[in-house]
Amino acid sequence: MTDWRHEAEKTRDASREIATLSTDVKNAALVDLADAIAANKAVLLAANAEDLAAASDLPDAKRKRLSLSESAVAQMVDGLRQIAALPDPVGAVASETVVPSGLRVRRVRCPLGVIMMIYEARPNVTIDAFSLCFKSGNACILKCGREALRSSQALADLAHDALLRHGVPESALTLLSTSDRKEIKALLALDGLIDLVIPRGGESLVRFVYEHARMPVLAHFHGVCHVFVDKSADLEMALRICVTGKTSAPATCNATEAVLIRADIAKAFAPRLVAAYRDAGVEMVGDAAVCELATGVSPAQDDDWGREFLAMKVAVRVVADINEAIEHIERYGSNHTEVIVSSDAASIAEFQRRVQASCVLANASTRFNDGYQLGLGAEIGISTSRIHAYGPMGLNELTTTRFVVDGDGQCR
Amino acid sequence: MTDWRHEAEKTRDASREIATLSTDVKNAALVDLADAIAANKAVLLAANAEDLAAASDLPDAKRKRLSLSESAVAQMVDGLRQIAALPDPVGAVASETVVPSGLRVRRVRCPLGVIMMIYEARPNVTIDAFSLCFKSGNACILKCGREALRSSQALADLAHDALLRHGVPESALTLLSTSDRKEIKALLALDGLIDLVIPRGGESLVRFVYEHARMPVLAHFHGVCHVFVDKSADLEMALRICVTGKTSAPATCNATEAVLIRADIAKAFAPRLVAAYRDAGVEMVGDAAVCELATGVSPAQDDDWGREFLAMKVAVRVVADINEAIEHIERYGSNHTEVIVSSDAASIAEFQRRVQASCVLANASTRFNDGYQLGLGAEIGISTSRIHAYGPMGLNELTTTRFVVDGDGQCR
Repeated sequence: MTDWRHEAEKTRDASREIATLSTDVKNAALVDLADAIAANKAVLLAANAEDLAAASDLPDAKRKRLSLSESAVAQMVDGLRQIAALPDPVGAVASETVVPSGLRVRRVRCPLGVIMMIYEARPNVTIDAFSLCFKSGNACILKCGREALRSSQALADLAHDALLRHGVPESALTLLSTSDRKEIKALLALDGLIDLVIPRGGESLVRFVYEHARMPVLAHFHGVCHVFVDKSADLEMALRICVTGKTSAPATCNATEAVLIRADIAKAFAPRLVAAYRDAGVEMVGDAAVCELATGVSPAQDDDWGREFLAMKVAVRVVADINEAIEHIERYGSNHTEVIVSSDAASIAEFQRRVQASCVLANASTRFNDGYQLGLGAEIGISTSRIHAYGPMGLNELTTTRFVVDGDGQCR
Repeated sequence: MTDWRHEAEKTRDASREIATLSTDVKNAALVDLADAIAANKAVLLAANAEDLAAASDLPDAKRKRLSLSESAVAQMVDGLRQIAALPDPVGAVASETVVPSGLRVRRVRCPLGVIMMIYEARPNVTIDAFSLCFKSGNACILKCGREALRSSQALADLAHDALLRHGVPESALTLLSTSDRKEIKALLALDGLIDLVIPRGGESLVRFVYEHARMPVLAHFHGVCHVFVDKSADLEMALRICVTGKTSAPATCNATEAVLIRADIAKAFAPRLVAAYRDAGVEMVGDAAVCELATGVSPAQDDDWGREFLAMKVAVRVVADINEAIEHIERYGSNHTEVIVSSDAASIAEFQRRVQASCVLANASTRFNDGYQLGLGAEIGISTSRIHAYGPMGLNELTTTRFVVDGDGQCR
């Protein structure tokens, strides 16, 4: 049995070296890994074929995530090159000031240390997570769903080779080959060796990590995202935002789960929305007002509000005014993504001020709460807790700042 | 028995209102409280006299912290006015960008929610903590050492009156009247109601909170701060930095606990340093080299390295070069405060790059790792963990940023 505590200690030691690597070395290793992945496509696809063969009883959606297609390999290669091209957060000066005593005080970005990431059977996440952690100067301990272990191991082998070619300790990336819950729990207790855990996956995985981790956890349990259609909304725009927000990726955390229609426009909008959803193949549940205004909507049950359907299904409700919309969101939202569609600047400002979710958009789809779409350049996950990071987490969110101070003999 | 869960729920409800209070209302309530404290000095001193009378067996140092002098009251009044005068972090735009899709993406500061703070029997911290939490839009649950409860309650009563006069729910400040460990543990389990815990006090208090809190904790266990005197150091400056770093406040977390002297200058510097410490009444332990170079230094025991003496005592060691100094700090430091005294820019840059403590100073005393001294305007504590805040925490560190996005119909 592998001594995972010892592996975590090696990762911690590696993290000290990685924290002060030059940008050039980090970028060269990332580009080198991109080339190695492109050159070893056949090896990767063969490992993945073994994973797929062993997981023949997996449901289709999970099988799709497990599968490494040629285009998925190309995406990994592109992703590595993109991350190599992003600015290095480490060493960036976040602020600089001279205080009355004459001290020059800089806040300089530095890595967090060791980041553990636990995710589902998606081999490409192994490379995404490693590359983001490495570029931001962190060592990482990665635990992928056990069905993806062969593919992930093949990718980690290439990463280790690339690291060693650039003089970087291979413990910069530790891939866990265990899925034993007792061993994972033991790792989650190592708060002196691991600085942060990021679980990404279903709610039960996230809850397991929150329950057992003794170090901080960044995650979201689920995304219950609402669109509030205000009375002044451009109804064509509202239709597109509501429909595509569900249909473009119905099972993602930033998919639209519920639409709140302001009463003033319910007669004009609800029947059109219901027809559009029906045409798009989306099942609907609604409150009494919606069921009265349109056909083909099932009456919503109490637990349909605040529910993440993760499917082509949506809930629709009529609200009296912006206050009732905000109350609904406070009660049923998950601090993930909330949208107002409105042409009235005052309503937009009020909604954006009072709704304190991690991302509040006006006149755009919930699907834009995503690190790439919001300009972070990359994303390792979305946090709905307010400590450390709130919303999508990119390279900066994998760092912190330390104080670097220059004096000329100050005492106190 | 008070139902603390219910109190925490009320605090959570209040936090929603406080998050969107205008800056004017917050500042007016803070200034109003300052006036009320000044006007009710006699009431406060009488409550404090009761606390002091009941705690007659407390050691002198703790008694001093418990005591509210006239000048301590004046300091609270000044502190409140200063915090009212600081910029409001809530609503500040941390960054703004237009991404290729045309979305305008702003990161806007917002409060964390409910902050619980657990501290020793120091009544003035009740006002410090409340004022920082309130100004940054957070509600707070405060637990002071039980010896200070009468004084803290008298202060909290004035705060509640001031809040109510400005239409703010008094649950913005919940003062716990219990010191029952079972009840505190139960509160530390309420991760759905409390967003962050800040323990401030001795190591056992901090460990208790880390062990039982289910929400994130920000704290430092201890401060083991080193001064490395490089070969190019101005020796007069080094003497002042080493001596005052210990003597000006020997029991604080940013006091100097150990001096590392580079071998090249040990003969010239060690005897002078030892003499200066002796004149200042500081006891010394040293390694063999120091004991040989100067008299009056006891041989250091193994556990004297990395020890927080919290007293007029310091450890002194000779190191071969900057590498040995940095290795010593990596092994024995506490990620709190590290200092280099040097005239050589390359050595300073290397030390500041490689030493990743929360505050790394060149040519200034360890005692400057403090929110006021580093220009934060205020300080609620110092964090030596890298998640959320690293180093002194001011108003900004009691907030996070959320994404506020403006579109014109974007879908994906």
